[in-house]
Amino acid sequence: MEKSALQIARAAYQPKLPKALQGPVNVKEGAATQSVGNQEEIKALFPNTYGMPVVEFVPAESENKDAINVGIILSGGQAPGGHNVISGLYDGVKSLNRDSKLYGFLMGPGGLVDHKYVEFTDEFIDEYRNTGGFDIIGSGRTKLEKEAQFESGIEILRQLGIKALVIIGGDDSNTNACVLAEYYAAKKYGVQVIGCPKTIDGDLKNEQIETSFGFDTACKTYSELIGNIQRDCNSARKYWHFIKVMGRSASHIALECALQCQPNICLISEEVEAKQMSLDDVVEYIAKAVALRAADGNNFGTVLVPEGLIEFIPAIKKLIAQLNEVLTDPATGEPREFKSADEQIAFVLNSITAENMAVLESLPADVKRQLCLDRDPHGNVQVSLIETEKLLSAMVAKKLDAWKQEGKFNGKFSAQHHFFGYEGRCAAPSNYDADYCYSLGYNASRLISNGKTGYMSVIRNTTAPAAEWIAGGVPITMMMNIERRNGANKPVIRKALVELDGAPFKYFVSKRDDWARRTAYVYPGPIQYFGPTEVCDQCTKTLALEQAKG
Amino acid sequence: MEKSALQIARAAYQPKLPKALQGPVNVKEGAATQSVGNQEEIKALFPNTYGMPVVEFVPAESENKDAINVGIILSGGQAPGGHNVISGLYDGVKSLNRDSKLYGFLMGPGGLVDHKYVEFTDEFIDEYRNTGGFDIIGSGRTKLEKEAQFESGIEILRQLGIKALVIIGGDDSNTNACVLAEYYAAKKYGVQVIGCPKTIDGDLKNEQIETSFGFDTACKTYSELIGNIQRDCNSARKYWHFIKVMGRSASHIALECALQCQPNICLISEEVEAKQMSLDDVVEYIAKAVALRAADGNNFGTVLVPEGLIEFIPAIKKLIAQLNEVLTDPATGEPREFKSADEQIAFVLNSITAENMAVLESLPADVKRQLCLDRDPHGNVQVSLIETEKLLSAMVAKKLDAWKQEGKFNGKFSAQHHFFGYEGRCAAPSNYDADYCYSLGYNASRLISNGKTGYMSVIRNTTAPAAEWIAGGVPITMMMNIERRNGANKPVIRKALVELDGAPFKYFVSKRDDWARRTAYVYPGPIQYFGPTEVCDQCTKTLALEQAKG
Repeated sequence: MEKSALQIARAAYQPKLPKALQGPVNVKEGAATQSVGNQEEIKALFPNTYGMPVVEFVPAESENKDAINVGIILSGGQAPGGHNVISGLYDGVKSLNRDSKLYGFLMGPGGLVDHKYVEFTDEFIDEYRNTGGFDIIGSGRTKLEKEAQFESGIEILRQLGIKALVIIGGDDSNTNACVLAEYYAAKKYGVQVIGCPKTIDGDLKNEQIETSFGFDTACKTYSELIGNIQRDCNSARKYWHFIKVMGRSASHIALECALQCQPNICLISEEVEAKQMSLDDVVEYIAKAVALRAADGNNFGTVLVPEGLIEFIPAIKKLIAQLNEVLTDPATGEPREFKSADEQIAFVLNSITAENMAVLESLPADVKRQLCLDRDPHGNVQVSLIETEKLLSAMVAKKLDAWKQEGKFNGKFSAQHHFFGYEGRCAAPSNYDADYCYSLGYNASRLISNGKTGYMSVIRNTTAPAAEWIAGGVPITMMMNIERRNGANKPVIRKALVELDGAPFKYFVSKRDDWARRTAYVYPGPIQYFGPTEVCDQCTKTLALEQAKG
Repeated sequence: MEKSALQIARAAYQPKLPKALQGPVNVKEGAATQSVGNQEEIKALFPNTYGMPVVEFVPAESENKDAINVGIILSGGQAPGGHNVISGLYDGVKSLNRDSKLYGFLMGPGGLVDHKYVEFTDEFIDEYRNTGGFDIIGSGRTKLEKEAQFESGIEILRQLGIKALVIIGGDDSNTNACVLAEYYAAKKYGVQVIGCPKTIDGDLKNEQIETSFGFDTACKTYSELIGNIQRDCNSARKYWHFIKVMGRSASHIALECALQCQPNICLISEEVEAKQMSLDDVVEYIAKAVALRAADGNNFGTVLVPEGLIEFIPAIKKLIAQLNEVLTDPATGEPREFKSADEQIAFVLNSITAENMAVLESLPADVKRQLCLDRDPHGNVQVSLIETEKLLSAMVAKKLDAWKQEGKFNGKFSAQHHFFGYEGRCAAPSNYDADYCYSLGYNASRLISNGKTGYMSVIRNTTAPAAEWIAGGVPITMMMNIERRNGANKPVIRKALVELDGAPFKYFVSKRDDWARRTAYVYPGPIQYFGPTEVCDQCTKTLALEQAKG
């Protein structure tokens, strides 16, 4: 592998560990736990892994130093720091005993099922310390949820003498990790399963988990770009930049970027839904801000748009639900077939309610056509193909034109569009994520050596210096409730959306009218790995505000 | 102005100066110069500023310390480091005499014509040291080329007692700076004019100018993002990423990013033109690489596309030229009017040659429509609106489908698209650009105090440590030749395209087949300002290769 100068210099970085993990540990157990909802149902589904205590590691004189073989899987979308979870886990099991072994299953959970794996060595791991990406073993989206998969998995785990499996993933992957832990416990297979909280989206967090790894680095990378665009915007003074940022459903990324960059406008999907806003309401909100700034002579600005917005607008959500319904053949459950695009459009227009028809008609022609035609393999509307940033700017332009006719707007409006997602998912982890991930992985080795299964590796108090971080584990069942998914009741980890009474959102609300009118841009610049601590070692604004409140 | 932690820490950075500028200077004059082409015509157009010697500054015992008032203008698109040219010039004139004054004309050359300006103070300048953007005084695209503008300018220059004007701009703005220098010299108005070489595009360079400022930082910012995408690409292993990068006509940015990141494919417009490639040739070139990688099981990759590509494809260039022609009314020279889009399309299809018709028919429907319909205010095809990255990937997909039918391709092809431009134009300058720009500005103060006009501020030997950089000036006329622009012969600075026999391109060619087949990605990561010198202080690969050769 040919390396950049930064990659070579950064390889030497030694991630920090919580004090408790710097030597032998004892387990301090808390009281028995309950799931966050549907306790009886969750308990019935997880008889072997329900109700276990939260655990915390404390320094000890000595610990069990038996060699252990461990397997690790990267599940789902990339997030900065995955390589450090693996190197932390590797160092953790090796610190117990040099004869311990770490195996990586290739290209996600599929590697376990298909028995594709590698064994890590010092040289192998050293190539990937403090780097971004999941390319060390690859990731994949195969869902581990069937008995046949679990049984195929146990074969290879036994063959390699693996005592525990660590699954790095988001809410769904950790739910599946818990199902697997329960299955192996019920069968008495003697294999533990530990989860690790990953996702740049930031929606895997709760009372026990402060943040999912990768959120910090991804948001800082997007904020660098947004800041750069804002500086350009404030120099050229002639464009409104509509910037969409990743985040499948929750708006945590958009909110964090807004807190870092102070754009003129940031939409928050959860608020749009709570206020039952229509698409036109959203457009009017933006257009009003444009008009206000134009009155001050400022025909430029920035608008942050969360990727998931469109599905949080109640009227559009309803429309999409009906489109998915009418385009499915009720007899077979398969997508309906049509002879031509025209036939398909005609069928749609004849099948939907007048209310949904009105919503469809309010959209620009290309979006309308796309909603009627483009399906994913399951026959569903491909919402992610809708270029929301362009849709909004086109509708804002139209509204401003109308206002101009009415004499209510006297400025200029010209837009540029951006979408940031892949740019940040594999950035080299910030110091925060490098330390946090390494600690999560190292910590997992101690959950394993202490016989835990069905736990998530948890590091807390991360707004303090790393030495003061608290290391331990939380039973995954504790985060679960029952939700309706694809027409069935399922035990799932509750997804964390932006809380409208949470400190980060409330701070944003207290500032946004000022940011909208003034040009209050902040330019965070690129992630720094070597500079002063106030530049290099800060957590996200979201986390700082949440913890300051708590 | 609310500042980020990085901005505060970075404000303290003291940019480095060449040794010669660290104390009093003397001027060392070279021999008389000639323009690079059309010597007689250029000489006739610039009788007062033609043939002057190249000058270099050397340390002296003392120098003239008279106070001087200077004005500065930012012209054209943003480039990282503009603020440092201004702070360097400010420190330069103040180092001569604390009573010197620096004025900034607002929002570009228009500020001079309209008498809009600010006077800089220590506090004002300190807010902008080592920051990106042109927001200190704003920039603009007004062209300074008419006598009425020059005369309006001299009024305010006299009123403020300004002895010299510094114009920061690209090739056109520096050409105009020279025309203005000549005009004021001919009129004996006693105002000097100095140019500064700016543009992220990197196309303002020649035997005398090693690089234009901003190219370094912009390319490093784009390379950070391309590297991140490549790491994602190599982790997920399922997408081909088509990444368009800015650069109006020359492909320097794409080439530099390729040298830094080693993508699978990088198109170079100048080569496409030289080889008389058709759009289909380009598509076939990409599709072949996709097929080769697919044969190795690698259904992923990266393609860098220079923004200007489409206009370098000879057949499309011809088509566009004819479209511009037929859509202009020959009687008035104004754009033709049509009753409807359909009428316009029908007119176009009836008016172009069979050869151009075939080219038009080969394009996807939306691009075809756009070429026939969308005009800029001068009636010209809006080439910049064509999403070349999407056009190419759609055509590659079509070709691969055909090959699949023929059994020549057996892989998968799924594409993602990106365009990077605004993300890098206002990044905080790298150490290289921070030092280079500060030196260019400081150096301009010495060109002024030594009575020079019609010169460009030039810093050379910049691949060596800053102390060894060579400071001086080059007569702008020396870089000129006559070119046909908008139907008239004009004296212009020759634009530097990628040289196909230059060291950077030749190095790229020697590597590209390997990079196309293998996954040889390099991940440069974000610009670092505080780390080890091999990470923070490197120039571009382009410059290093050019200077190593020379």
